[in-house]
Amino acid sequence: MKVAFVGLGQMGSAIAANLLKAGHNVTVYNRTRSRAEALQSLGAVVANTPGEAVSETEVVLTMLADDRAVEAVVFGKGNILDSLGAEAIHVSMSTISVALSGRLALAHQEKKQHYVAAPVFGRPDSAAAAKLFVVAAGKSEPVARCRDLFNAIGQKTFEIGEEPIAANLFKLSGNFLITSVIESLAESFALVRKFGFDQDKFLEVMTESLFTTPVYKNYGTILTKEKFDPPGFKLPLGLKDNRLVLAAAEEKAVPMPIATLVGNNFLAAIAQGFGESDWSAVARVTFRNAGL
Amino acid sequence: MKVAFVGLGQMGSAIAANLLKAGHNVTVYNRTRSRAEALQSLGAVVANTPGEAVSETEVVLTMLADDRAVEAVVFGKGNILDSLGAEAIHVSMSTISVALSGRLALAHQEKKQHYVAAPVFGRPDSAAAAKLFVVAAGKSEPVARCRDLFNAIGQKTFEIGEEPIAANLFKLSGNFLITSVIESLAESFALVRKFGFDQDKFLEVMTESLFTTPVYKNYGTILTKEKFDPPGFKLPLGLKDNRLVLAAAEEKAVPMPIATLVGNNFLAAIAQGFGESDWSAVARVTFRNAGL
Amino acid sequence: MKVAFVGLGQMGSAIAANLLKAGHNVTVYNRTRSRAEALQSLGAVVANTPGEAVSETEVVLTMLADDRAVEAVVFGKGNILDSLGAEAIHVSMSTISVALSGRLALAHQEKKQHYVAAPVFGRPDSAAAAKLFVVAAGKSEPVARCRDLFNAIGQKTFEIGEEPIAANLFKLSGNFLITSVIESLAESFALVRKFGFDQDKFLEVMTESLFTTPVYKNYGTILTKEKFDPPGFKLPLGLKDNRLVLAAAEEKAVPMPIATLVGNNFLAAIAQGFGESDWSAVARVTFRNAGL
Amino acid sequence: MKVAFVGLGQMGSAIAANLLKAGHNVTVYNRTRSRAEALQSLGAVVANTPGEAVSETEVVLTMLADDRAVEAVVFGKGNILDSLGAEAIHVSMSTISVALSGRLALAHQEKKQHYVAAPVFGRPDSAAAAKLFVVAAGKSEPVARCRDLFNAIGQKTFEIGEEPIAANLFKLSGNFLITSVIESLAESFALVRKFGFDQDKFLEVMTESLFTTPVYKNYGTILTKEKFDPPGFKLPLGLKDNRLVLAAAEEKAVPMPIATLVGNNFLAAIAQGFGESDWSAVARVTFRNAGL
Repeated sequence: MKVAFVGLGQMGSAIAANLLKAGHNVTVYNRTRSRAEALQSLGAVVANTPGEAVSETEVVLTMLADDRAVEAVVFGKGNILDSLGAEAIHVSMSTISVALSGRLALAHQEKKQHYVAAPVFGRPDSAAAAKLFVVAAGKSEPVARCRDLFNAIGQKTFEIGEEPIAANLFKLSGNFLITSVIESLAESFALVRKFGFDQDKFLEVMTESLFTTPVYKNYGTILTKEKFDPPGFKLPLGLKDNRLVLAAAEEKAVPMPIATLVGNNFLAAIAQGFGESDWSAVARVTFRNAGL
Repeated sequence: MKVAFVGLGQMGSAIAANLLKAGHNVTVYNRTRSRAEALQSLGAVVANTPGEAVSETEVVLTMLADDRAVEAVVFGKGNILDSLGAEAIHVSMSTISVALSGRLALAHQEKKQHYVAAPVFGRPDSAAAAKLFVVAAGKSEPVARCRDLFNAIGQKTFEIGEEPIAANLFKLSGNFLITSVIESLAESFALVRKFGFDQDKFLEVMTESLFTTPVYKNYGTILTKEKFDPPGFKLPLGLKDNRLVLAAAEEKAVPMPIATLVGNNFLAAIAQGFGESDWSAVARVTFRNAGL
Repeated sequence: MKVAFVGLGQMGSAIAANLLKAGHNVTVYNRTRSRAEALQSLGAVVANTPGEAVSETEVVLTMLADDRAVEAVVFGKGNILDSLGAEAIHVSMSTISVALSGRLALAHQEKKQHYVAAPVFGRPDSAAAAKLFVVAAGKSEPVARCRDLFNAIGQKTFEIGEEPIAANLFKLSGNFLITSVIESLAESFALVRKFGFDQDKFLEVMTESLFTTPVYKNYGTILTKEKFDPPGFKLPLGLKDNRLVLAAAEEKAVPMPIATLVGNNFLAAIAQGFGESDWSAVARVTFRNAGL
Repeated sequence: MKVAFVGLGQMGSAIAANLLKAGHNVTVYNRTRSRAEALQSLGAVVANTPGEAVSETEVVLTMLADDRAVEAVVFGKGNILDSLGAEAIHVSMSTISVALSGRLALAHQEKKQHYVAAPVFGRPDSAAAAKLFVVAAGKSEPVARCRDLFNAIGQKTFEIGEEPIAANLFKLSGNFLITSVIESLAESFALVRKFGFDQDKFLEVMTESLFTTPVYKNYGTILTKEKFDPPGFKLPLGLKDNRLVLAAAEEKAVPMPIATLVGNNFLAAIAQGFGESDWSAVARVTFRNAGL
């Protein structure tokens, strides 16, 4: 399929590479051009603007850091919205606000383009291994058209319905659940450590009994080893996602006390200088408060 | 093996039954005698006091509701401590305080008896199916002597070292992790519901991607169906375990903010009349605070 | 002095009336014109737009509900910024974000106008009685020119320095302190009530010993009487101020756990239908969680 | 009046001295005898045991660190209970649990003695200046008999009713309110400081407008100067009182989220080595989490 890919960070580059390997015809754009050129050896064509990238494509996938970056490529100078053809599809994979996703849906509709929200779960290593989980929401016809693309980049796609923002909300809620795991593990590790017991043994018991899932194993191991660098997902992005889920919650008057608690710890982590580490370094705040 | 079993609540009855089915010779004691007699058809001998139950046995297993109940059978009238033979083993499976477990270890040592802490993970249905996870700690020789018993009641035994209280701490910490799951799921379900999206779909996405473990599936389903009755584990027992983990944390000066948050919700749940429901009904507090 | 007053809600109307009573020459503007006309009997001149109101005045005072309302009158159609004379002063009394206050300072500076942030403490009854506390920040010359105005509306003015945003931050922090008082009183009243003791007696002891200040007396009495209607300051405005202080805190990476706790309770209060009551009705969430 | 005084810490010594200065006949007992002897120059008679101290007195006042210390002198070896005459009064001024106060009431009643709970508000300097606030509860006749004593040590006595435990609950709730003040001030100071504004100016504005009460002034000044040593009231005692209020709250199923939040910070303060400082050093945790 002829597609464009905009946003070549750690995640985007890995995803775009998998699309190329799967035989798709990919035109890429990235603000820092060198990251786009790095994909030329796999067959990517490099565009000068997002608009140029999408002018001839059936589908454009975007994978950007935050709302502002998405707004820039969709609504800004040399943008996607004005260049994307009618009936073409914008697949937004970025973790953005529910509010912006709603605006994108409307904007594309007015241009008779399609909009599919398709955020993903998985860290860069999963992206590289085409093992992402894709949560796709949008009209069924364009979603169906994207299936091959999703299959090329992930191990499983969840098609959750016609309202794009549901996908964004699920993604934000899932990230919230992950942060709850990190904080609850941090508290229990702090407890086990201060009793002088073996936290690796504790983690082993937990992950081979009740919590036999990679999230507990992976973050558990990061926490017991305190291996927060290099980051798989930078802490300020974790804070950003925390703010996005809280913004959605505020819109509907939903108190989320664990989310605010974790949010406070993200701020403390940044205040204490852990802003360049993985988001799981939020656990350091909990460890430090325990005197560890 | 000739064993005694003291404490025949939902969990204890199921465990004792499995010991009987595995061919062990089991003398049982329960304060409410009828629950002991119910096991006679499986071959159990009914004793009149804990002391009588243990007088001829190699191992006594206790499974009781709380510290006070354990203290009563171990130190009270007609107690275990005075009747248990030298070299015999007390396997304490109850979820009790780290402090009491430490006292039990000392008391048995003075009597030249052995003490193994072996709390279990699993709800009554897992106990009935002999699918518990056993976390055993104590001297290696007595722990080794108990292996057959553990195999008869559980799917897996973790032998985690020589210090009994480590097992109690692991158990309490594990229960804390479960309550964190319940609360974090409750917050995210409240959010999804107030947006008008399908919480079952959200749960499906989560449990088939990142959280592929029964804890999320089981409690997730309880929460989406709000099926808190009949209880698998009563809410006040959940509060009790919360207090026990916080007491251990206080002893070592470990702040556990999620644990205190959940503890507050347990109190609110009791104040609002959910004390007869499953401990997962703590989610109702979160739902109610969201106006659901 | 020839002044303009924009924003005639409960607070603004009372303040403008006091300026008129003190002999100032006041042109007023309000979106809902009838509230402006109500001041004509005191001598106010009614303008059709904010810009018209300020065109001939030395000072314009604005007292509006939120950032959006301030942006509308300062930057919107028929705005203040384009009509206010050079060297004239904009005194912003609204409780707005630190960020917007910073933008206002810059915008007026570019127009060679002056900007003084002067938020006030006090509820509508204090405003009516000219008993407000004014917290003024800005260049010393314009602040000095406003002293008579401040004296006409308040019992005391604090001139806190040259940086306008400091006044906004102080105001938001002060409001945060008040919400902490409300929530801490709510928790202690719930405790006293559930023991069956006399909460009025408790409040009396507290306010005649350690907490001899109107904030405790007034909010304490509102809480013991549960007299949350009619509102002196509506609950959604309290939530708004909570969000503003948290936004400022986030900008500087300051975790504020009591502020987030109160914020969650504001959301719960709105979710439970208390959005038309006084902001102190946030206490109802605490009472309800205690089963009261 | 012929009285005994048991417990001569910072508070007790100052109170006993004021009783002596007021002309009362005071027999004193303290575990560390030298502190008792220090009062001989003021006319105190030194006893060898609590029981000896009270054998001839009409009233015994106790002022001890915690439940355990009170239990020791009332129920332990050489105790008060067995030596105090019928109709004599035990005035318990210590900050103890509601549960213990209830037990004391019963125990004295059985001995036909009287029990008055009379905890006080005020730090050591207030005790020395006879400026305490006394909160007295008990039968009206014995309370009336103690009025002269209360007048000698405090600036005001609140007689709040016949149930002694109400006084203990009021005291614990009052201390909780103070800790809420400390934490809320800490959060707002952290915010003001990280914006680079003057926290002393902020404190001045607050304490000369809405919060014109010594609690805000005194703790505010301690926090801005970070002058936590020497302690007026040691941090672990603050933690103890926090646990006592939470224990009372748990008994009646009252969630107190600010209290648990402060409790976590007390634990963090101890974990980080501030256990020898004033209880207001709990603010250091908040400062540190803000990167200060």
